[in-house]
Amino acid sequence: MASCFSVCRLPMRGADRLLKWCPNSDLQAQRRLARTTFATKAQAINKTLHAAPTSVESFSSIQDERRERAERSVLISCPPKINERKILDYLSKHGDIRNYFFYQTYGMYAVVEFSSKESIAALKGSCTIPSVQHEASVPFKSRLLSLKWTGSIGPTTVKCHEQLPISINELIQQLSEQESIDQQMQCLTEAYQLTEENISLRFLVCSLLRDIAAAYFPESIIRPFGSTVNSFGKLGCDLDMFLDLDGVSVQNQRKGSGLSLEYQVKRGASERNVTQSILSVIGECVDQFSPGCVGVQKILNARVPLVRFSHQPSGFQCDLTANNRVAMKSTELLYVYGSLDARVRYLVFTVRCWARVHGITSGIPGAWITNFSLTVLVLFFLQQRTPAVLPTLDQLRDLAEKLLQEFFEFYGSFAFNRSSINIRKGREQNKPEAAALYIQNPFETSLNVSKNVNATQLERFVALCRESAWLLQQGEVLKRSATPSADQIPPWGLAALLLPSVAESAGVKGRRKKKREPASERIKTLLQSLKSSRGGAGEKQSSDDHRH
Amino acid sequence: MASCFSVCRLPMRGADRLLKWCPNSDLQAQRRLARTTFATKAQAINKTLHAAPTSVESFSSIQDERRERAERSVLISCPPKINERKILDYLSKHGDIRNYFFYQTYGMYAVVEFSSKESIAALKGSCTIPSVQHEASVPFKSRLLSLKWTGSIGPTTVKCHEQLPISINELIQQLSEQESIDQQMQCLTEAYQLTEENISLRFLVCSLLRDIAAAYFPESIIRPFGSTVNSFGKLGCDLDMFLDLDGVSVQNQRKGSGLSLEYQVKRGASERNVTQSILSVIGECVDQFSPGCVGVQKILNARVPLVRFSHQPSGFQCDLTANNRVAMKSTELLYVYGSLDARVRYLVFTVRCWARVHGITSGIPGAWITNFSLTVLVLFFLQQRTPAVLPTLDQLRDLAEKLLQEFFEFYGSFAFNRSSINIRKGREQNKPEAAALYIQNPFETSLNVSKNVNATQLERFVALCRESAWLLQQGEVLKRSATPSADQIPPWGLAALLLPSVAESAGVKGRRKKKREPASERIKTLLQSLKSSRGGAGEKQSSDDHRH
Repeated sequence: MASCFSVCRLPMRGADRLLKWCPNSDLQAQRRLARTTFATKAQAINKTLHAAPTSVESFSSIQDERRERAERSVLISCPPKINERKILDYLSKHGDIRNYFFYQTYGMYAVVEFSSKESIAALKGSCTIPSVQHEASVPFKSRLLSLKWTGSIGPTTVKCHEQLPISINELIQQLSEQESIDQQMQCLTEAYQLTEENISLRFLVCSLLRDIAAAYFPESIIRPFGSTVNSFGKLGCDLDMFLDLDGVSVQNQRKGSGLSLEYQVKRGASERNVTQSILSVIGECVDQFSPGCVGVQKILNARVPLVRFSHQPSGFQCDLTANNRVAMKSTELLYVYGSLDARVRYLVFTVRCWARVHGITSGIPGAWITNFSLTVLVLFFLQQRTPAVLPTLDQLRDLAEKLLQEFFEFYGSFAFNRSSINIRKGREQNKPEAAALYIQNPFETSLNVSKNVNATQLERFVALCRESAWLLQQGEVLKRSATPSADQIPPWGLAALLLPSVAESAGVKGRRKKKREPASERIKTLLQSLKSSRGGAGEKQSSDDHRH
Repeated sequence: MASCFSVCRLPMRGADRLLKWCPNSDLQAQRRLARTTFATKAQAINKTLHAAPTSVESFSSIQDERRERAERSVLISCPPKINERKILDYLSKHGDIRNYFFYQTYGMYAVVEFSSKESIAALKGSCTIPSVQHEASVPFKSRLLSLKWTGSIGPTTVKCHEQLPISINELIQQLSEQESIDQQMQCLTEAYQLTEENISLRFLVCSLLRDIAAAYFPESIIRPFGSTVNSFGKLGCDLDMFLDLDGVSVQNQRKGSGLSLEYQVKRGASERNVTQSILSVIGECVDQFSPGCVGVQKILNARVPLVRFSHQPSGFQCDLTANNRVAMKSTELLYVYGSLDARVRYLVFTVRCWARVHGITSGIPGAWITNFSLTVLVLFFLQQRTPAVLPTLDQLRDLAEKLLQEFFEFYGSFAFNRSSINIRKGREQNKPEAAALYIQNPFETSLNVSKNVNATQLERFVALCRESAWLLQQGEVLKRSATPSADQIPPWGLAALLLPSVAESAGVKGRRKKKREPASERIKTLLQSLKSSRGGAGEKQSSDDHRH
């Protein structure tokens, strides 16, 4: 409750409603906060998101600003019991604190953003390198610090911000409480999407990693791409980053003069070789020097060479690639699509969640459809449907429900066997090569983004689409039961689609459950339970029924 | 002839005589040079060397000044045909040039020292990263640059400074031309010792390597140690360096306050583990990023972990260790001994040269006596002889000859079988353990600096000492023949000691020559030739005789 840090998520609408200005009696702490807060920031971002024509420009300026703020921030490991005011008093000796928040992963941490970069230098000046008996330390001075508390422990007054999504059961409960499928999709998006704090933390991890790269390439930038910044990221998703060396390699060769100077440089046979060299060294530095980075793997022979590691203080699984311009273009494309219409993000979050709970996508690499492919499928569907343009305001409410159903119908009957998906042109085309699922990479048009998907996985997806489409056609599933008490409402609408029985009915094998009843039998039970619960009795029992 | 760079070696006396101020008609180039030149620098160093009581303090201040100058310098690869004036005109656009010189290794290079560090930044601002077709570059911007010349080539007007010693045959010829053994020893020292330019180049290579280390440890220093700075270095010797992190690890833990901040750091089980980590990363950076560094080997499991590489532009074989404080102490000790009396350095250079030509020492690691051990043997001898203190000025001339002879007699009859050498106390002691040669490490007193030497190698050394002592007792060897033309003088004195026949006479096997005449026969021939050449006839023939 004492948190003076406003929570802002990144929804398309209702942002103001979500902004929580906790009443804060700690005037001293409030004074420490500069006027620009995450709240006004969020409003600015929202404004930008709604101003579609300028969103491409805004995308990079938003990232630039986040990066600049990350450079003024430190990450501090705190003792388990802490007094917020004491910590802020102590830290603000070194400069004006603009923003801060606390969170818990492997221990308690604080992200503290100062108003100026000089404060970081002042703060670091007061830091010591710990000496530990029988051990030695690598004296690399990063912005990951530890706060030690040797005096008496005051009352713990810190509110922690969650960095992981709610459980599927909690989600289903929350969805069931909504008034419409439209609201359910929005609720799901708001529960899953990255929070402002989480995005700040991601940019801070990029900034810490940049300190390592900038040691040798001062003009380099570590840019997050993919879900962290494409507005489709779910809490807990991986942090994909790339090392941007474009600022370093500028050729300003002057002509005319007889004499000129060049840097002597090491050469590689190809851009790829040089990328491998650079990632190899950065990987080594992260492994040997960078505190909190564990499990460092150099995967240099992949198509896109990368360094993978876990950043323990943030809990992020990180992948660092280099000069990955195409990935950044894809990210921006998704961001632009996401900002055109709020329904795009709702539909993508919903379809992704639905695909994940039914095992269509997976956290493990394999023949599964990837989240990126799934997102392209959604975008393609939105391009293909008639009308493809935005409907009138009157149609808005119904449309959300309709879009989800149409999505399932569209892919339930799509000619995957002969057609490929081209979102560049917004139309289907003949497949250029044999692949179960062919989705043209919008930037590297000769590549198939879903090359990994095999026939079995595609069949599961199609079957699940058909089953879900059929379910949404059943009137009973679409209607919320009239139960007065909210915590007794049985799953309906989107919540019903997320139940395991849906996949079982579609003939899609759950990864753990081997036994299943005949599909017709399961569907009958489901519909029966919805009917009986609408009658206002036996909700608890029937809801238990279709969860086992 | 057009060089406006004064050549200074580091002798104990006669420095002024050696300082060559080449008359320079290039007024423009002269203007570019600031008033402080290597000449006045050398005088200052000489003054310091002669002021024995303060030499310990001076040692570190001399190194600090050299390091600071290296930070203001760049290393530039030049086209094979160059016009000095054009190059200086071009470079001086970026700042005042204080010193410069040219040399040739794998191509032509220039070391250019600016008056201020800002000039380096200005110069780098004008440098481009070369783009080469079908290749890619690692865009690491070091101070190793390439000068490109696209216009018409003017006359080559550059004098190159030699970075390697003269051949043994040239040396023998030069020695033979001297008037006394005293002069021969001084001549040998002056021909072999590091030049001012060579030392500058060594500090520049350290400074380039420091740029890599400082990327992560800004307070770190790369210090050269051993022959580069102990005043006993021979042109072409290895460049030994260590990474000094003492400035980084300062603990300034404040007591009293309830709160304190620490850096989070990676830990190792021991100082050694941390050293290995740091050297591993630096080795990786040198290998992947640093231009001109080839053949990088990480030898991390050695007693003293190290990174070895060749720095092609300088031609130096480099060894980098970390926090090697003991090595620095040994270096300073040798430097202090060398500065106490010029004869110390003459005797050390002479004995080292004598040992090398006869295969007592070797460039390859093995059971041979090391140069360091040999130097300790000389110092110990100088401590043991009576009187151990400096003699009167009248005795000086004779003493040089006497010292060399006495050195051979001392170790020709030293009880190596039971006694160890302790230069800390300046006396022999019982051997603490079985080893052919036991020389106590003056700083790590439980270690034997010549543990590697086996009985055979020690026997060769002793036999050669006896043979050399015997030769110097023969009056004929000590006297120069009265030949009027200098290039016809047959080897005498020190020159005679360096002939292969000496080792053969001592029963010491040459590494290549298998056949040899009986020792007595060889000596007879040598003495005969000296006698006959003193007669003024047949010099050429007899000199050829004892060279085959």
